Amino acid sequence: MKILKTARAVQNLIKKERCSGKTVGFVPTMGCLHEGHLSLIRRAKKENDNTVVSIFVNPKQFSPREDFSRYPRNKKHDEYLLQKEKVDIIFYPSAEEMYPHRYLTYVEVERLSSILCGQFRPGHFKGVATIVTKLFNIVMPDTAYFGQKDAQQAVIIAKMADDLNFPLKIKILPTVREADGLALSSRNRYLDPQQRRDAVVLFKALQQARRMIRAGARDAAGIKRTMATTIRKKPSVSSLDYIAIVDAKTLAPVRRIQKNKILIALAVRIKATRLIDNCIVTAP
Amino acid sequence: MKILKTARAVQNLIKKERCSGKTVGFVPTMGCLHEGHLSLIRRAKKENDNTVVSIFVNPKQFSPREDFSRYPRNKKHDEYLLQKEKVDIIFYPSAEEMYPHRYLTYVEVERLSSILCGQFRPGHFKGVATIVTKLFNIVMPDTAYFGQKDAQQAVIIAKMADDLNFPLKIKILPTVREADGLALSSRNRYLDPQQRRDAVVLFKALQQARRMIRAGARDAAGIKRTMATTIRKKPSVSSLDYIAIVDAKTLAPVRRIQKNKILIALAVRIKATRLIDNCIVTAP
Repeated sequence: MKILKTARAVQNLIKKERCSGKTVGFVPTMGCLHEGHLSLIRRAKKENDNTVVSIFVNPKQFSPREDFSRYPRNKKHDEYLLQKEKVDIIFYPSAEEMYPHRYLTYVEVERLSSILCGQFRPGHFKGVATIVTKLFNIVMPDTAYFGQKDAQQAVIIAKMADDLNFPLKIKILPTVREADGLALSSRNRYLDPQQRRDAVVLFKALQQARRMIRAGARDAAGIKRTMATTIRKKPSVSSLDYIAIVDAKTLAPVRRIQKNKILIALAVRIKATRLIDNCIVTAP
Repeated sequence: MKILKTARAVQNLIKKERCSGKTVGFVPTMGCLHEGHLSLIRRAKKENDNTVVSIFVNPKQFSPREDFSRYPRNKKHDEYLLQKEKVDIIFYPSAEEMYPHRYLTYVEVERLSSILCGQFRPGHFKGVATIVTKLFNIVMPDTAYFGQKDAQQAVIIAKMADDLNFPLKIKILPTVREADGLALSSRNRYLDPQQRRDAVVLFKALQQARRMIRAGARDAAGIKRTMATTIRKKPSVSSLDYIAIVDAKTLAPVRRIQKNKILIALAVRIKATRLIDNCIVTAP
């Protein structure tokens, strides 16, 4: 396993691999790896000759009031996990390597970036689109793997890759969950035991919505009201950023649930910890 | 010579070429080719196994009041010239191919895009950065060639390629001029004979500035005043958008000319036709 710290070193190595006909799978992460990341890495390993994992806590996707400085970092354990998965290359750049003095260039997927989480995290998806563009140019993968847990990010990156003609495939893999349904997230470690118990309400509310739709509910507003009531009952819930029922591909709001795939997504603050979750549903 | 109309067709062909170790040189154009373009193409031919020329009048880099619809197009003659130069691939996409319905993604080099020409052409360099990103992802060149005539564009694209880690080299080649000094431009054909004679004043003013600096002038404001007087004397000059004396790399304004490379750039309207020109000077 090679650990590389510069973009140039990765590009030189990957160019060689691709010239000899080898495929490259890529999993970009912010480190503090959990089974969600590992499921992406295992798929990348299975489908490619080389697997590259980047670890970079991207300052540009955090707003000044957010948790950039306290975002969990666990380099030694991450390396241990990646070694165990037989990852070929870890790209581990510094902030200075990615954003040198006088950095000026940004990528933005308009409209999709200002709704849902974008309303509560201004600049977040611009930071995501920018770093992912840079990483795609550095790693030059055949396929890049992202988790469905970050549903809006997945839609934005797929749209960006398509709009900007990136010569690669994007694969979105299912959310990995704890036994009780809580979606894995590096931020779960911020939760104390009571908060951890209450946090499962995101999943519960999604399950509730799914059951309602299966039972014939078609009015999105009514479903969202029921979900909100469930969520607000939990004492650790400090605020409900949003519950959205939208078209799974365009993220356009859905009022009446029809036959197309819909995304039910929500963001909830469990005291100071902001958690997100979602599910994709097709009405029967 | 292959003429390809889809991004996918170009990517498939280039992937094959690159896999067999062949290099790719790329010259993006808006067509209506002149000796300026041909100088780039000849250099690309000399330095690469394959040369790709794109022809696409990019609607996103024209503002609604600009000359997009009347911008000169000359497909047959362009093809004739490219055939003569033994270009390998022409990429000739439709607007629909490049910006399909629901296109949403843009690239912007902040700060550098809002000064000089950017002040007079809002959105222009965002359109340029976006189309060049798309073309880089489609053509995947080893080296891309641009003309110094579009000095600000050259700085912005070099900065973008660097910031976004594009795995390629940018080369900027000298402006090609008519015998009397007028910089070649597809827009020169808008000029009537009187306007054509007056248009040489852009070059004359730049020469004047160069002579002043050689003779010891160091105050940028004084040099700009002298240039403006020269330009405004010509009856066809309807307005002087700007004269700028800036650092050649950062485009930061220069008040007192020092030892670093400076760019003297100007944009002048000859009746309805907006022309630009520039030169790079180092004080002796």
